[in-house]
Order: sequence, then structure tokens, then C-alpha cells
Amino acid sequence: MSEMIFMVEYVESEMKKVDVWKLKKYVCKVKPMDIMTGKNIIVLNKAEAQEHDIYSGYRTELKHDGKSIITIVDVSEEIVEPGEVGIFRDLTTWHKMKKGDTVEIVHMDRPESITYIKKKLDKGALNAQEIRTIVKEIMQDKLSEIETSAWIAAAYINGFTDDEIIALAEATVDSGDQLNLGKHPILDKHCIGGVAGNRTTMIVVPIITALGLYMPKTSSRSITSAAGTADTMEVLADVTFNMEELRSMVLKAKGAIVWGGGMKLAPVDDKLIRVRHPLSLDPEGMLLASILGKKKSVGAEYAIIDIPVGRGVKVPYIERGNELAKHFISVGDRLGIKIEALITDGAEPVGNGIGPALECFDVLNVLQGKGPEDLKHKSVLLAGKLLELCGKVDKGQGYGIAEKTLMSGKALAKFREIVEIQGGNPNVSGYDIKIGDHTHIVTSEVSGSIFHIDNKTMAKIARIAGSPRDKGAGVLLHRVRGDRVEVGDKLYTIFAESEAKLDFTIKAIKDLEPIEMRKMLLGSLQ
Amino acid sequence: MSEMIFMVEYVESEMKKVDVWKLKKYVCKVKPMDIMTGKNIIVLNKAEAQEHDIYSGYRTELKHDGKSIITIVDVSEEIVEPGEVGIFRDLTTWHKMKKGDTVEIVHMDRPESITYIKKKLDKGALNAQEIRTIVKEIMQDKLSEIETSAWIAAAYINGFTDDEIIALAEATVDSGDQLNLGKHPILDKHCIGGVAGNRTTMIVVPIITALGLYMPKTSSRSITSAAGTADTMEVLADVTFNMEELRSMVLKAKGAIVWGGGMKLAPVDDKLIRVRHPLSLDPEGMLLASILGKKKSVGAEYAIIDIPVGRGVKVPYIERGNELAKHFISVGDRLGIKIEALITDGAEPVGNGIGPALECFDVLNVLQGKGPEDLKHKSVLLAGKLLELCGKVDKGQGYGIAEKTLMSGKALAKFREIVEIQGGNPNVSGYDIKIGDHTHIVTSEVSGSIFHIDNKTMAKIARIAGSPRDKGAGVLLHRVRGDRVEVGDKLYTIFAESEAKLDFTIKAIKDLEPIEMRKMLLGSLQ
Repeated sequence: MSEMIFMVEYVESEMKKVDVWKLKKYVCKVKPMDIMTGKNIIVLNKAEAQEHDIYSGYRTELKHDGKSIITIVDVSEEIVEPGEVGIFRDLTTWHKMKKGDTVEIVHMDRPESITYIKKKLDKGALNAQEIRTIVKEIMQDKLSEIETSAWIAAAYINGFTDDEIIALAEATVDSGDQLNLGKHPILDKHCIGGVAGNRTTMIVVPIITALGLYMPKTSSRSITSAAGTADTMEVLADVTFNMEELRSMVLKAKGAIVWGGGMKLAPVDDKLIRVRHPLSLDPEGMLLASILGKKKSVGAEYAIIDIPVGRGVKVPYIERGNELAKHFISVGDRLGIKIEALITDGAEPVGNGIGPALECFDVLNVLQGKGPEDLKHKSVLLAGKLLELCGKVDKGQGYGIAEKTLMSGKALAKFREIVEIQGGNPNVSGYDIKIGDHTHIVTSEVSGSIFHIDNKTMAKIARIAGSPRDKGAGVLLHRVRGDRVEVGDKLYTIFAESEAKLDFTIKAIKDLEPIEMRKMLLGSLQ
Repeated sequence: MSEMIFMVEYVESEMKKVDVWKLKKYVCKVKPMDIMTGKNIIVLNKAEAQEHDIYSGYRTELKHDGKSIITIVDVSEEIVEPGEVGIFRDLTTWHKMKKGDTVEIVHMDRPESITYIKKKLDKGALNAQEIRTIVKEIMQDKLSEIETSAWIAAAYINGFTDDEIIALAEATVDSGDQLNLGKHPILDKHCIGGVAGNRTTMIVVPIITALGLYMPKTSSRSITSAAGTADTMEVLADVTFNMEELRSMVLKAKGAIVWGGGMKLAPVDDKLIRVRHPLSLDPEGMLLASILGKKKSVGAEYAIIDIPVGRGVKVPYIERGNELAKHFISVGDRLGIKIEALITDGAEPVGNGIGPALECFDVLNVLQGKGPEDLKHKSVLLAGKLLELCGKVDKGQGYGIAEKTLMSGKALAKFREIVEIQGGNPNVSGYDIKIGDHTHIVTSEVSGSIFHIDNKTMAKIARIAGSPRDKGAGVLLHRVRGDRVEVGDKLYTIFAESEAKLDFTIKAIKDLEPIEMRKMLLGSLQ
């Protein structure tokens, strides 16, 4: 309860801008503490901090060796004596502090953003400077998650104007490094996600680059899915490169498929996603700024946005998909990115494999001119649209040219070149991919036709089996929607890298229904 | 960035309620860590946690010795080995864990509240059961500050229905202990705050109780002000009592003036205030539920709500004060509390002293039949209205009867009785109060009339001088608004308990303008 004496000048009115507490010098000796938390936490003696109107949860500036670091305050009555400051290992390592070093604790200026977040809560629109300030203070760790969460909630309820989205996208670009190839045109693609498998990027990039165009593709790792493109590419090659390495690879091979998180690409977005996740808050304006900011950071001029619609993905109906598509196009236009948004069927997985190695196997098969048919068709479709969008080929010619590039083996050759330049084995074939050797075949207990294969439940099963961490773990589908099956027919196989994980997965699927059979009677009321 | 693989099933769809991860047993040995943070933090080995789909920032259940504790996860690559769980001292102390104890880490159920907070963000109204669940999960620490902040932002933007306010007030009452005196009527008062000095409670309670009515007053400590009622009462007596002690004191003396934070009174409110503070978010519905929930917790049947209006306090205009007043009355009615809301002049401090001892000195002077006139008048007014509200005296008689009770010395006698029962010296007089003996008199540098004395700036000066922690520190005003002063006339005196603090305050006031003189020219444009 004494922590309730909590905020004092920090949240005070705008009345007086002068922070008189700053005049007070508060000098401490460093006491290193062997804890890491990923945050800049310091521990102050409770009574001494209180004398300076600093309380648990406050942000303060820590001055050390001429540098100023924003820190989050914990307090302690015992572990830290007056005159000491406990410093977690994140900080001591990073800033080379050692026991007994003298540091100064200074009141942090009230974040300017507080006023702007309040304005947004009050349904106001922020100008570019105000958005830039919020982004800057998030990057400086001046804003807490409480404050950031309130901004996101306000954006969710009150919406963002297009000006706000543009400003946020541009500030997102500025928050990190940018790729400057000095080449044109630069092509890109993005899928808003939710579909299991669906590993089109690893097919689109080789088709596009085989035709002489630039495609420096940064991808994400899995968040809730069984595998992200970065996890899947990593089965064959390194994916962690910095911006300079990406630049030199793309100048050589025209394309690359790397992990966006490995470089300082739009880092403010990572911080926003962390706060958006617990409530799955995806304010449309933030989603657009995040996706297009990342495209802009790699210099994209033309981009295909894949918007899957259907049961269980983010966009449930085509009409909503169309609205979102128009918004992508208009905002992209203002950012200097020409966009075509495709509404695709996202109700079921695309491809047979779910999990890094299994998805990689699908990709190599498609590049070798084989199936799975749905993955091949979708990838060629995306590549073709991209070729038309950037004016490389005439309207109506894209699909054919993309398909020819794929079936001729040129895309495969290009893919091998990219794998090699990223440190992998260029001669890899599907048979070299290590799949988990503990397997369990799930068969149908009824006869009927398959009504639905659930993306999320399949992803969950693959994750329980160990994916994406165990690259060889996952699910291989033997059936697609609409198939007729009899009792005992194979539905899917679970792969795991250990017997224990396989056993656990077998136990877990008893509570899940990844494949629904068609039923006539859906319910009954009396 | 690897922390971005962050939420997985936690925020997943409602699709499947079964949390299959729960089936996995995750047994660790306790490794105590000598850190206190006031939160239930555990540190897991990063790779091992990830195998169980647990990431930094997650909430998990920790099972130990038959008990289940909700904890917040930090991860570490080095300090904690696989098979270990680092446990901060808050938890080891409280739950008697020691090195090597075996505990189980279990996935926490997805908080039910996530769905309800989402509903509120989508402009829905929550029912009583949903509000109760949110309050319950906040109390269990199942909800993080990110989630709570989003709820508060949603309440701020979308508002609360009266049903929601009632439900929140009732859930607030249920979150803590309740006072059950078995006596009637129970009277109460509350000021929504912002006015420096203004220590009416310590005069109203003795007047009311001297007339034979019950007034078990719980008060707060200072948050941004120089002193709360609890800080001021503490100059003379103890204020930290549990509910049972409060009950027995009130049964004897009819009244008491204690610190609400000393007992488990509406504890969910403390957690909400912590999250509301950084942005000063006071959604009206939460304000009402908070204030009236606390009144309800002590069994109040009649209450005066003091709503100061004016420059720099929460309510700037009378019209807004009237709206708020009506809302207090209607919600109070539904909670079974008869309310009269008074709109008062809050633009300037009430009383001469600002700081615990100086305010206490004012209170004793008023109880002894002396000034300050404004504090005396306001206290008598509040007491008189309360007497009329509960039907103890006829309309129009309250002020006179309250004044008579004060001037006759009966209120003083009652106050001494309350001081004694709370462990203080009943024979205390103003001269016994220890005021800081380092003083500095601030004189006017101009001649003119005083236009404004600023509550917040005066509170700031008192706090810089050491109040409320140094009870003798503060400011004594020599002038009121409208007074004519000449160059060199005394304006106010600063009191501090050390020369260093006094010097610092003198330096600090150079940047502040606590007293504004009347000016004709307010600005000039060219």
C-alpha cells in the first residue's frame, strides 16, 4: 500500500514543466546482482528512493561514465543499503559497470508522449511529430507497458487516420536499419497469416529472382504457428544476418530469405507486438503500419499482400478482406509502395506438411516440379501477380511465365544459389531433410467426408510434438477437405524427435478435433 | 527478438478450451534468489521453458506443498539450469520454500477476463458476473498490467453503464474485508481531492460523533498532495489498524480516523489505481465504484461527497461538478448509500498549513474555536449537511448545531477521546506539535493584489521540503487570494526538518510560481 504513494510529479499536470527534483543529486555505488531479465531494472533502497520521490515502477535516468540509461525501478528494504543501487546483469554487462562504481540516479523527464496518448484516448488525431515522439520514447524505454497498452487500446477503439498510419509506418522505418540496394525494382510479398503450411515465400522468391528481379525477403519466425518462413528456411541454411550482410547477398544473388528479427528492422514493431499480444489487439492502423513499415525498410516498391479469409483466420469474410485490401493499397500508395492485395482461401492448410522440416520438404518438391498441388498453384499465382504488378510482364502473362520458370528448373537453380549464399548445401534434395523418426499414424474412426481441417488445431498438434524448436517435428496431412474416407483410412501422421514427445502428443490429441467430418445434425433444442 | 515467440496458446482463439499443455508435468528444484520486487517472479531456464511453450512475461501456476501460486515468468540462459527454478525472496519467504524443494510449473488457464476485456474494447457492456471475474483475476494476479491497462482505457473511452459501476463497486467491496458494526446510522464523507490543506475530516468526525452518531472514517495517505488525512492524523496518534481493531474502537468512541491502507479495504482498488496513475486515467465509472465501494465496505448509509471545482483541481467547471454529483447520488442510491454531493470552491488551499504537522496545527486551532476561518466554515458546513442528510436534525438546522458542537468544546473533547483510543496523547495542544525548525520566509517582490494561490505548486514546495515523510515539513500561508501586498510583505514560510532540505527548497522555488499577482496584460501578439 505504501507503493500507492506512487506517482507524484510524474503524472502531474502540465502546469509546471520544470522538474525541480532533477536538481537533487542522488549518487550511489553499484552493487551488481546476478539476475538477467531482459529489462533495465535497478533496485534502490526503499526509504532513500522515497526521499527523492522515486517509487517502485518509476522510470529513472541512471548516469554512468557520461552515458544516460533509462531504467525501471524496483525497491528493497534490505538487500540494497542506502547509498547503493542494485543493478541486474543486463545492465552491468552492457554498460561495463562494476561493484563500487559511482552512478547518479536522476528523475526522468515526464514522457512527452503521455500528453499525446491522452489526446488519442480523448478521440483526437495525432500529428506526425506526436507519433514520432511516442515511437522514440517507446524505443528509449521511457514509456511503460501500461502506457503503451493504453495507446494501443485507444488506437483499437478510436481508430487511426491514414495520416497517423503513414506517420507510424515512417517512424517504424526510422526506428531501425534500412536496406539501400541502389537497384530497382525491389519486390516483396507478405501474408497476414493464420494458414498452416502455406510456405509460398520459399517458392515465390526463387521464381522472381530467377527472372532477374530483386527480392530481399525478410521473414518472421513462428509466433503461434508450427513454423514461420524463417524457421523453415533455417532447415537448409542460415537465416540470421545483419543488414549489411543481407545487402551484399542480395547484390550477388538478387534475392535472399532471412529472418527479420536478426537485424534491426523496424524494432519498435517488436515492442508494440509484445504489448498487443496478450489481448490479441490488432488495431488495423497498427497492422498496416507494421507490415508496410517493414516493406519500406527493405526498400520495397511493389508488393503482393496475401489476405487469407475463412474460418479461424484473422479475416472471416471476403467483404472484410476487400476493405482491408483497399486500405493496404491506399496506404501503400502514400508510402510509395505499389500494392496488389489478394484475397485467398485460408480456411484449410496449404501444402501437406506442418512443421519446419515437413514444410521444407513440400517446398523442395514443388521446386522440383512436383506437388503438393495447392502450394504450387498458390505460389505460382502470387509470383505471377507480382510480375504483372511491377510491369515486368503484361497483364494475363504472369501465371504462365511464373509456372514456366518453376517447371523449367530455373527457380530450383536459383533457390540452390540462395541456399548456398546463405551458407547451406546447394545440392540438397528432399531426401536429405531430417524428419522426426518417431511417428504415429492417425486413422479415421468413422466413415464420411472431410468437412474441415483446422489450421490452429493442426498447428497446436505440431507444436506439442516439438515444432518449431524440433525442426523435424510436425504433422503430415494425407487428406484434404472434401475427401471421402472409410474407417481405418489414414488421416495424418505425427512426427516427433523423441518417443516421449510423441507419446505426449498422442495423449494430447484425444482432446482435440483437428479434422471434422461432415455431420447433418448440428444441434437439437427441446 | 526470440521473446517474440511469445504467447502461443495463451491468446489463442476460443476454439478449443482444452489446454493440452497442462498435461505436461514440469518439475523443478527451487533455487532461492535474494531479490525482492513485490511481485511473484520466478526465473526459468530459457530453453527448458520454451519446450513447454512458456516465455518471458507469461503467467504460470507454481504448485508447491499442495498450494497453487500464480507467478510471472522471467527467463535466463545461464543463472538457472534446466531442472531449476529461480525464486525471488518475496515468494520463498511467504510460501516457506527452500533450496532444493520440488515444485511443479503448470500452464496457467487463459484468464477468462481476456474475453470480457475484449468485449469492453468492442463497446459491449459487461454483466455483473463478468465484472466479478475481472476483479477476481486481478486479485489473483492472473491479469497483467498490460491487460488491466487496456480495460481501463476501454472504460475511459467507452464508459461504464450504471450496472457496470454497481457491479464493480460490489466486487470491490467483496475483494476485501468489511466493517460490520451492527449500529445505525453509519455516516461518512469523502472529498475527491486536489485542494491543499483542506483537512476537514479531522473536524467533521468529532462534531458528528460528539452528537452520538457513528462515523468510522478510513482515509488515505498522500498521493500527490503534501499530506493525506491519514498522514496528518498520524502526527497525533496511530492510524494503522486492522478491521477488527477499527470495529472495537468505533464501538467505544463512535468514531475513528484511520488509514484505509492499513486494512484489507477494497484491495482491488489499489491495484487499479496503480495502473490508472501513469496516465492519470480516471474513468468516471471507476472513480465512482472506487469511492462508493470503499464507503460501502465500512457500512456507510449516509455520505457527503465534497466535489471541489476550479482551476487546477479535477473538476474545472461547476456544470461538470453538477453532472458528477448527480451520478454519485444515483449510483449511491442503488448501493444503499444516501448521498449529498456538495460543489465547493477548490481553486485555492483551505486552511493556512500545508504538510502534516502544519495542517494538524490548523485542525487543533479550529477545534479550539479559533481559525483558520475557511477551514472552520467548510468543516461546519459539511458536518451540518451530514446531520441533515441522515435526519438527525431538521433541514436548515445542521450548520447551527454543528457550529455549536464545535464552539462548545464538545467536538474537541470527542477528538481527544478518539486520539486517546488510537494510542495518542489526549491532552495534546497546538503547541505540542513539532514543526520543522529550519524556516525560510518568502516575501513579495512586487506590490499588488494576490490573484491566485496554486494548490499543486504549494503541494510541490511542501513535498520538496520533505513532507509528508518529514511530518514537520511544509508551507504556512500568510495570505489569501485577493489580499493586497507591498514589496517585502510576508507571503508564506517554508518549514523543513534539515538545513539541507530547506536550502534545496529555496533553490527549487526559483523555478516555481505558487502565488500569482494580478496582471492586466496577459499577452501580446504582433
